[in-house]
Amino acid sequence: MAQSIYDNPEFFAGYARLPRQVHGLDGAPEWPAIRTMLPDITGKRVVDLGCGFGWASRWMREQGAVSVLGIDLSNNMISRARADTNDSAVEYRIADLETLELPEAAFDLAYSALAFHYIKDFARLVRTVHRALTPGADFVFTVEHPIFMAAAGPHWLTDEAGRRIWPVSRYAIEGERRTDWFVKDVIKYHRTMATTLNVLIGTGFRLVSIDEFAPSPEQIAKAPSLAEELERPMMLLVAVRR
Amino acid sequence: MAQSIYDNPEFFAGYARLPRQVHGLDGAPEWPAIRTMLPDITGKRVVDLGCGFGWASRWMREQGAVSVLGIDLSNNMISRARADTNDSAVEYRIADLETLELPEAAFDLAYSALAFHYIKDFARLVRTVHRALTPGADFVFTVEHPIFMAAAGPHWLTDEAGRRIWPVSRYAIEGERRTDWFVKDVIKYHRTMATTLNVLIGTGFRLVSIDEFAPSPEQIAKAPSLAEELERPMMLLVAVRR
Repeated sequence: MAQSIYDNPEFFAGYARLPRQVHGLDGAPEWPAIRTMLPDITGKRVVDLGCGFGWASRWMREQGAVSVLGIDLSNNMISRARADTNDSAVEYRIADLETLELPEAAFDLAYSALAFHYIKDFARLVRTVHRALTPGADFVFTVEHPIFMAAAGPHWLTDEAGRRIWPVSRYAIEGERRTDWFVKDVIKYHRTMATTLNVLIGTGFRLVSIDEFAPSPEQIAKAPSLAEELERPMMLLVAVRR
Repeated sequence: MAQSIYDNPEFFAGYARLPRQVHGLDGAPEWPAIRTMLPDITGKRVVDLGCGFGWASRWMREQGAVSVLGIDLSNNMISRARADTNDSAVEYRIADLETLELPEAAFDLAYSALAFHYIKDFARLVRTVHRALTPGADFVFTVEHPIFMAAAGPHWLTDEAGRRIWPVSRYAIEGERRTDWFVKDVIKYHRTMATTLNVLIGTGFRLVSIDEFAPSPEQIAKAPSLAEELERPMMLLVAVRR
């Protein structure tokens, strides 16, 4: 099985201190945007792909899901998710999204937050999710935006006029990207917007909407550092329907 | 009526010398990608929005369209299109896409190449096209890519490691962009990928596919300068169906 960067102690120590891990869903500025893309959860069987600490899995259950299956590659994440969850309708499983098998037509909603940019074979995963969903079921996920991921070693730069800019390069050249985030050489996989959407459509999903998270004026007033998210999108939010 | 930059003599003189204007569709490297997104043209009534010199309008007719209506704001363009066309089934009309009126359910295919980034009110135009198409009709268009358009004064830069990069900034801030292209201060309108796709879906179109034009190895071998298009997409190609 592939190794999860989330089981690297140094990485995990840094990651666990992120606001979104300390404060849960409300610590993620894109959460209000995700909520508007989610369907009514009541009565749904939900699968949460890359569930991490289980914040979203538990929220889905609180919203009326009849069952939630949270899946993550990381022992650290699943151990913490289990410790933080006291609900027999929420189950957690350690599994690699690259080789995941799911029962057919077993779920009414698939959800994933910021996991798929670690996946090399996105097309296989999308086929797996499509088969696992019932007709009409929604699939809502977030992923690092290709604008954010494309360049080699992307970081803020300043142009000749003193404007803050984000570099894009190698956009059409998909595949491995190595960046430093808590530790050196975290491996992610860049895909163009076209590949992400065309794979979904080609597998049989219908695009419902996308969002390229940008903070609201109210969010910036509360957390001024969020203003930089207006300059370039860090996250892509996608809602499709089977 | 709005004024067309294509009626500015200095702009027009430069524009008319572009390979894609001298050589027609085969002078546009994205044309093979567009062709794969177009349906069978035979028997279709086509509207070509921002038809320019009429290259695509005439091609549609050669492919078996029963009628083609080419629309452009520019006197210069329409005069040249009329002079170059000898076919009563191909009609050209001077009209502003911002205020365009089209008859209901009168077309089986709508096409547009690199015109919509000049349009401020994209949502109105999409509603107009939707009403003018028959159910099941395709709408295929190209537009400057938001990665290409977002920044103020975008141009190639070099980062500290000597890598060629394209700057992105103000991505979430939609609206007017002024750039120099043949003349100073050509006005275009930046829209995010999300806005472009969500407006189409919200109006009732279904997304069929998108393409972020990147040259093939064969194209780069023939025209090495095209390699820079791998670094960042200049064009977005969209196919939707009513």
